[in-house]
Amino acid sequence: MRVLVIGANGDVGKNIVKSLKDTEEHTPVAMVRKEEQIDYFKNLNVETVLADLEGDFEKAYDQIEAVIFAAGSGPSTGPDKTVIVDQEGAIEATELAQKNRVKRFVLLSAMGADQPKQADQIKHYLYAKHRADEYLKASGLDYTIVRPGELTDDTGKGQVNLQESGVGLGSIPREDVAAVLVHLLTKKDAEGKVYELVSGDTKIEDL
Amino acid sequence: MRVLVIGANGDVGKNIVKSLKDTEEHTPVAMVRKEEQIDYFKNLNVETVLADLEGDFEKAYDQIEAVIFAAGSGPSTGPDKTVIVDQEGAIEATELAQKNRVKRFVLLSAMGADQPKQADQIKHYLYAKHRADEYLKASGLDYTIVRPGELTDDTGKGQVNLQESGVGLGSIPREDVAAVLVHLLTKKDAEGKVYELVSGDTKIEDL
Repeated sequence: MRVLVIGANGDVGKNIVKSLKDTEEHTPVAMVRKEEQIDYFKNLNVETVLADLEGDFEKAYDQIEAVIFAAGSGPSTGPDKTVIVDQEGAIEATELAQKNRVKRFVLLSAMGADQPKQADQIKHYLYAKHRADEYLKASGLDYTIVRPGELTDDTGKGQVNLQESGVGLGSIPREDVAAVLVHLLTKKDAEGKVYELVSGDTKIEDL
Repeated sequence: MRVLVIGANGDVGKNIVKSLKDTEEHTPVAMVRKEEQIDYFKNLNVETVLADLEGDFEKAYDQIEAVIFAAGSGPSTGPDKTVIVDQEGAIEATELAQKNRVKRFVLLSAMGADQPKQADQIKHYLYAKHRADEYLKASGLDYTIVRPGELTDDTGKGQVNLQESGVGLGSIPREDVAAVLVHLLTKKDAEGKVYELVSGDTKIEDL
């Protein structure tokens, strides 16, 4: 499939693009916000589209069959950007996917987004993720939502624990998260599912 | 009706409680977060319920027939509280109204919440208000949403401009906003409507 990666320039996003590129069945389209981010993907021979999640980004959906949404405002900006990017960016990406008849939408969420009220920290962040998740779930799209534990920059292990609930607290390399998102794109019984994800004992290709 | 005022201790909220008290048909129940906020309402001979919008506040809905939601995190806290209070507080208040078969829900929103993307400033705030508005609109409740312009502490004029759209930029005393919210509680053709509101030439009782 021709897969739009929203948030391609992020730490998970770059790994998603590489994972997609390594498959035979998918072609990534990297959506980036800044001109200077294009070269990185050009050097990988990956198509890019210059579009801003805070602006009008419908042009990015040209001939797109699937979307992986991995954008996040990150820790260097304030909670206002969490609303604008993590929540509203994801909601608008969902709306555009409906409008453009995208076949599959994989959303990177966060562990705890099922119960933001219980959170001691980053409650506003988990509410924003929760609200985006709920919007996608109600959209009628074929979706998969993945809620990883703490993200690390370690090299991927290729082995994970992916469950609909109860994986417990844990961490996982961003490289493995990306590989799981790409794997789930075409996994039929992942449609309409919400998963928790940490490192574990199951090979990603066996999921 | 027995009307729960959420955000009763706020500047608009206090005026709502007084407006309700001045009617013959309504009995206000003031939901407040802190013990020390109770006396103010006791002195007015108004029933209070001590409950936190960020916690479990279902007990506040005991025998409640209508809700006016006027809570806001205000300018002295960060955008994280905007998500938690203005957005998620309103969404949970809506869910509890559904669950407890509340007959009428009047929500204080903000001008510009229809098109947050166009905003130069307070975009995250308008998105939060927008998301809460959308949730209420889809809830199946009999709702009215009011989006006032800039709020002032001036004495109420009793005359306003209330339209579904196009009132233009303007301001309005909080006292008048409160009086309009209370007036709309029992106005049959305000059900399912979203209004903009600024000061104007129409007497509130003629709305």
